[in-house]
Amino acid sequence: MSHSIKDKIEKIAGKLNQNYINQGIFELGIGEKLPKRSEITELINVLRRIIFPGYFGSENTAYVSLDIFAGSSLAILYEKLFKQTRIALSVGRKYKNNTETEEKAEEKTLKLIEDLPLIQAMIFKDVEAQLSGDPAANSKEEVIFSYPRIFAIFIYRIAHKLYELNIPFIPRIMTEYAHSRTGIAINPGAVIGEYFFIDHGTGIVIGETIKIGNNVKIYQGVTLGALSTRKGQALTGVKRHPTIEDNVVIYANTTILGGETIVGENSIIDGNIFITKPIPANTKVSSYMPQLKYTKRKG
Amino acid sequence: MSHSIKDKIEKIAGKLNQNYINQGIFELGIGEKLPKRSEITELINVLRRIIFPGYFGSENTAYVSLDIFAGSSLAILYEKLFKQTRIALSVGRKYKNNTETEEKAEEKTLKLIEDLPLIQAMIFKDVEAQLSGDPAANSKEEVIFSYPRIFAIFIYRIAHKLYELNIPFIPRIMTEYAHSRTGIAINPGAVIGEYFFIDHGTGIVIGETIKIGNNVKIYQGVTLGALSTRKGQALTGVKRHPTIEDNVVIYANTTILGGETIVGENSIIDGNIFITKPIPANTKVSSYMPQLKYTKRKG
Amino acid sequence: MSHSIKDKIEKIAGKLNQNYINQGIFELGIGEKLPKRSEITELINVLRRIIFPGYFGSENTAYVSLDIFAGSSLAILYEKLFKQTRIALSVGRKYKNNTETEEKAEEKTLKLIEDLPLIQAMIFKDVEAQLSGDPAANSKEEVIFSYPRIFAIFIYRIAHKLYELNIPFIPRIMTEYAHSRTGIAINPGAVIGEYFFIDHGTGIVIGETIKIGNNVKIYQGVTLGALSTRKGQALTGVKRHPTIEDNVVIYANTTILGGETIVGENSIIDGNIFITKPIPANTKVSSYMPQLKYTKRKG
Repeated sequence: MSHSIKDKIEKIAGKLNQNYINQGIFELGIGEKLPKRSEITELINVLRRIIFPGYFGSENTAYVSLDIFAGSSLAILYEKLFKQTRIALSVGRKYKNNTETEEKAEEKTLKLIEDLPLIQAMIFKDVEAQLSGDPAANSKEEVIFSYPRIFAIFIYRIAHKLYELNIPFIPRIMTEYAHSRTGIAINPGAVIGEYFFIDHGTGIVIGETIKIGNNVKIYQGVTLGALSTRKGQALTGVKRHPTIEDNVVIYANTTILGGETIVGENSIIDGNIFITKPIPANTKVSSYMPQLKYTKRKG
Repeated sequence: MSHSIKDKIEKIAGKLNQNYINQGIFELGIGEKLPKRSEITELINVLRRIIFPGYFGSENTAYVSLDIFAGSSLAILYEKLFKQTRIALSVGRKYKNNTETEEKAEEKTLKLIEDLPLIQAMIFKDVEAQLSGDPAANSKEEVIFSYPRIFAIFIYRIAHKLYELNIPFIPRIMTEYAHSRTGIAINPGAVIGEYFFIDHGTGIVIGETIKIGNNVKIYQGVTLGALSTRKGQALTGVKRHPTIEDNVVIYANTTILGGETIVGENSIIDGNIFITKPIPANTKVSSYMPQLKYTKRKG
Repeated sequence: MSHSIKDKIEKIAGKLNQNYINQGIFELGIGEKLPKRSEITELINVLRRIIFPGYFGSENTAYVSLDIFAGSSLAILYEKLFKQTRIALSVGRKYKNNTETEEKAEEKTLKLIEDLPLIQAMIFKDVEAQLSGDPAANSKEEVIFSYPRIFAIFIYRIAHKLYELNIPFIPRIMTEYAHSRTGIAINPGAVIGEYFFIDHGTGIVIGETIKIGNNVKIYQGVTLGALSTRKGQALTGVKRHPTIEDNVVIYANTTILGGETIVGENSIIDGNIFITKPIPANTKVSSYMPQLKYTKRKG
């Protein structure tokens, strides 16, 4: 590199540094104070191996019994999750000192781990729902192994627990990681019942304050969202998203918006429909489609 | 880690283990009996280097002639594909013993490799279709190099051959990997003709029993799907998805459903249309759009 | 591997080689003449560390002051970007000899680096727009850290500068990489103003010749595209995509097409709308939705 280039680069570095200072979120050493995305991705991998042993990553389950595997993996999980939780709680500066932060991190980490058997049982029910709902699925193994939607649901179920435990950053990093891998955006705040079925999945958006019952089926491109978020930050914490009761089916590309929009149990909503009003239970909603226009082309 | 945490973790490990046992799909050693996703991703990389030498991965094609490169790469491909195919066939327990499984794995692996020159020629035609159909594309090289849709089509063409060869697991793992990278979900069972053009691609869903002719163009968000999959597993093997004949164009976000829905040749379907009935050949289908309502806002 | 398999593989290698020769884009040594995708991904990582120090990748910012960090990172960026730019310009064969190509590569690389402080300031404004527009966002840190849409916008802003500098290949590889990670497809040619807000993002398509003003908000599934690209390559360079003026909001899954379609400032376009005609300023556009049909189901 020539001297003149070096000089130019030095000058530009000064300007970048000025930007850093103006923003005030890039302090010296901040790298030590934020959860690490690569660590959280690794956490997801550890969790996936625990939930579905033998399916992902290193195959050492071939040589140990499953209960020994579970024990040693949980110990690894504990250490990793504790570390990232402590960092996340520090950034949020929720507690008065490091000792209290550490105690809370320990408590919350243990809570997640204690709930893992229940979360795992939920995820197994989701696997069953994918298998029984999809004629193209050949086996539970295939669903676990190759379906991005199971990956998205698995991450959501973990992240939701972390969200309930008031751990900042980590739940959203997890669900946005799943979003980026699968095209399925489930906010960790959403409450979703048992046997949740997603078909294909790309483009699904499920908002923060949504409630979904049991045995619900949702197809690709469905948005369950807010009527308008123009008020932005002023709406934080308000119930902005719909409630979907048990056994509802929502076909592809339908949009359901609004915090008071309740879709009653056993209802079926056709594809490509736009709904902002409550739907009674046991209702099939379809739409008078716009009339089609057929024009003859020269063959 | 304190003793009390260790004790808790041990108890939770016991519960997880009970879940594993109840599910019955996590036997000891299963890690040795399932295809490895990382190996299949690596297989895709090897295949991509063979189809498009010099474009991806290690650049050793710079130093050998292309025919030597092809030979050595095919040998690597053979070993890797044979190994995963043998495992996949074992999981399916299709054959009476290991020897027969090995023979079948060898036969199927060789079949795929023998078809590679034809598959490659198909893929080159797909590259041409992307270039000639997209004003934003500057060269074949750019299409190969940077278009996720070519990645999705390339993987589909390989996976479809493996699907035809009745190899379990691997085809779906491949197409779901492409789905996750590109937002384009093409089931390996779909039959797709020459010069297949996809624009953008995110949100495209192409079902298992679809038939698509030659020179077909499909835009982002198009679903070619089943009318309803509520019967789930009972529909396995039934023709549930449409037939799209030669030279058809389907614009963005249109949904075409049902096993008896045939779109005749040379027809053009506008965007945002919902079709569940057959369309004759040489027809342009548009829609009387819902009337728009304009309201004056305060500026 | 048996001899018969070896023989077969050799024969197939010959056929593949014939395909390579017929295509003419796989010359010996081409690996040295194309930009490397892995290098461009690495470039993106370096750029991300420079724009958001301490948030991504190696955490050595903890131990040096930010201006030293900026200087050394820019030097790394310069070397990497110069190398790939030189290769990209060589493939395009734009200049008469290697010396001229090197000079141009140096000039363009330096231009990008000189503009980085301004680009960074733009990106910080985009971060602010995500935070103020999204009630589910908790902090700027969370937005930077976990929002795929900020990743997509960050890459677009860099790629757009490289596009303006007439560097081939690299801009599109970058934006398609973002597309593949986020489901958001922004062509590097698009011109986008300050405080650009994207919600969720999956399925968004923004075409090459689009112009977007300041403070524009776009929701998931919105297409800003061409009316028809059937003429393919003949349309290269023509303004085919809409103009969106300042302060416009476009809700989910709306499609706006055509080079003469201008959406005037302060207008709000509802979701699921199809627009191919200009919209005056200060207008709220909604749609008379198709009437819904409610059918009672047995509960």
